[in-house]
Amino acid sequence: MIEIEQALAAIYQRTEPRQAERLPLSQAVGRVLAEDILSDIDSPPYDKALVDGYAVVATDMRGGRGDFMVIDEVRAGDIPCEPLQSGMATRVMAGAPVPRGADTVVPGERAQADDSGDLPLVHLEEPNVRPGQHILPRGTSLQRGQTVLSQGHRLTAIEIGILAEVGRLEVLVHPQPRLSVLAVGDQLVSPAEVPGAGQIRNSTGPMLGALIQAAGGQAVDRGIALDTEPELTRQINQGFREDALVLCGSVTTGAMEMVPRVLRDLGVERVFQGVRVSPGRTFWLGTLGHARGRRFVFGVPDNPVSALVCFYLFVRPAITALAGYPVDEPVRIQAHLADAYHQRGDRPTYHPVRLERQNEKMVVRLLDPRGMPDLKSLAEASGLALFPGGRTDFAPGQTISVIRF
Amino acid sequence: MIEIEQALAAIYQRTEPRQAERLPLSQAVGRVLAEDILSDIDSPPYDKALVDGYAVVATDMRGGRGDFMVIDEVRAGDIPCEPLQSGMATRVMAGAPVPRGADTVVPGERAQADDSGDLPLVHLEEPNVRPGQHILPRGTSLQRGQTVLSQGHRLTAIEIGILAEVGRLEVLVHPQPRLSVLAVGDQLVSPAEVPGAGQIRNSTGPMLGALIQAAGGQAVDRGIALDTEPELTRQINQGFREDALVLCGSVTTGAMEMVPRVLRDLGVERVFQGVRVSPGRTFWLGTLGHARGRRFVFGVPDNPVSALVCFYLFVRPAITALAGYPVDEPVRIQAHLADAYHQRGDRPTYHPVRLERQNEKMVVRLLDPRGMPDLKSLAEASGLALFPGGRTDFAPGQTISVIRF
Repeated sequence: MIEIEQALAAIYQRTEPRQAERLPLSQAVGRVLAEDILSDIDSPPYDKALVDGYAVVATDMRGGRGDFMVIDEVRAGDIPCEPLQSGMATRVMAGAPVPRGADTVVPGERAQADDSGDLPLVHLEEPNVRPGQHILPRGTSLQRGQTVLSQGHRLTAIEIGILAEVGRLEVLVHPQPRLSVLAVGDQLVSPAEVPGAGQIRNSTGPMLGALIQAAGGQAVDRGIALDTEPELTRQINQGFREDALVLCGSVTTGAMEMVPRVLRDLGVERVFQGVRVSPGRTFWLGTLGHARGRRFVFGVPDNPVSALVCFYLFVRPAITALAGYPVDEPVRIQAHLADAYHQRGDRPTYHPVRLERQNEKMVVRLLDPRGMPDLKSLAEASGLALFPGGRTDFAPGQTISVIRF
Repeated sequence: MIEIEQALAAIYQRTEPRQAERLPLSQAVGRVLAEDILSDIDSPPYDKALVDGYAVVATDMRGGRGDFMVIDEVRAGDIPCEPLQSGMATRVMAGAPVPRGADTVVPGERAQADDSGDLPLVHLEEPNVRPGQHILPRGTSLQRGQTVLSQGHRLTAIEIGILAEVGRLEVLVHPQPRLSVLAVGDQLVSPAEVPGAGQIRNSTGPMLGALIQAAGGQAVDRGIALDTEPELTRQINQGFREDALVLCGSVTTGAMEMVPRVLRDLGVERVFQGVRVSPGRTFWLGTLGHARGRRFVFGVPDNPVSALVCFYLFVRPAITALAGYPVDEPVRIQAHLADAYHQRGDRPTYHPVRLERQNEKMVVRLLDPRGMPDLKSLAEASGLALFPGGRTDFAPGQTISVIRF
């Protein structure tokens, strides 16, 4: 039996991001880049006016004023025809290119236009005029050849816009990890069946599938394991089409007793079996193959609370590592116990809890301090509270660490 | 021009959850129930032992002790063959059914077994024995006919397990809303093209698609609007295959000038045009049809910051309403300004900001206090800070409201 930290280290040591794939932008949000992204353009592509006004040469504004001949009018999307010379002005709209020769923009509210003559004229007055004012120079945002996003970065929605801006319709990313879930247990029946005496429906399998999806993976529900060795071998082999196979079941049932033999015959290497944690003591890890082709087998208990604890402690970190996310530990917060609690076992113990905000403090209520909560009360949990191993009394108000969902 | 709150009220008034569909459990996490879910079983299905031990009749433990004949041994999944009578004990494992007649379980560590004779015997000592101890009565978690989840509830991963437990493989839910995005603008080219003079790539369209996905919708990128009326009519009509069409573009461009005419000819009703907010002043809403068949058209400016503000203020609430989520305003927090800021315009103004934790306080930094940030610096934003309209000076440290992404 190993410690939680050792188990986690063994998982991280063996997981690397999935083989990168070229995906269209529309599927890339939330994925991790497997290439550096360079800009193929300058942005803005020209010196851009930031306000409506007149582009002129700053030195023409002697004493903060000047009279100009208006030679052109340019909107966003237009191309200025004429380079500007001393004594001339071009009317520019916000977003329009500033013509060559001009080095400043005087805002429209500083202008008096005179359209009475053959040629339009404008009188500008701005005491503190400076070269470069109200102009965004070419390449301020993006320069051609510059790295705009780096390998290993997880793409946000806004960055999908940046990828489009630098000319990408597709991008090389690590795809979502795929995990299959197979429930093992002679007493299990499908949710479609009415359980007979001694039977229960497979609910932990579907719950694990939904947890995998919520953590950013794709889940394939492979139902319930059949109880002959050839059938079990076929089902486990099918599970290896995905990156990982989650076997959930009780170690004491008949089909589960076959599992170690079937896995050994398939060439699965046992990495560890048993972790010093409660619940989840029976969690185990196996692997098949190496490097990027490596497949994982997680052995998860079928009790819903144990399955949830193993998922948050071990399976979720594996999913995020396969997705290529920067190491992403569960969110742990400090919170105050609402009620007294007596810790008995030697193993670090996780209890499903409800977190409540009381004034400025986060308060923690155990869902079922006496026993294992069922799925229905477990649905009210907003986190898992950690009680270190050993016989200890915890007083109300005492601070404990909570993994927040 | 209407106020933000009026615009939002007009949106909520017209949005109702999408027509419910029957989806398999594997696609139901995060969706909103359109039916009440009743349990078809009792859970546990029998009085269940919570510890390994001996099931007996409590009144047999006179003075906290007793000797018993062991008549049966029952594991989880077994069915007890024999009802229990006075003087008898059944060995039960945790999770096993307690036999009829027994009303208490004495834990194994309180027992001394004697297997020397013909019939196995056991001596039990537990001073404080109580009827019902270590037994979870039938139906404690779920009772047949009981409502376990109600219409309007958004399904978590754990609740997918509950649905399986009560026999559901499929469930009636409101599906994800679908939105198409069409970029309008003569100067726009596809990301696949190299922009010529005066052209820019369509980046706001793909960004909006990714924002829609991140908010729980499905996005269909319909590219760039073509500049003839029949083509634009065809493209907008295609957009109405989805629940809503987001038109993003500048109101001044040629294609955008055609839009009002095309929409009117298609029978689209203008709900409002223009909202008193900065940026996003030009945002407008149109609808086509009624009730569940109603389609929405959102007119969003093409500037990335304006598009982002309109998305968070108006489009995202529409997505969550179409998804059937309980009214889900953006998350607003109070935070402290890092730098002084001078608010000039009359309209409530949203600025993209970076939120930073400093000791116990959340501190807000404006991304680009002078002008509109470009997409690249916008990618660093973690929220939108609200400055109420009117000429006001904000001092460093002052508290402001921030929409957190």
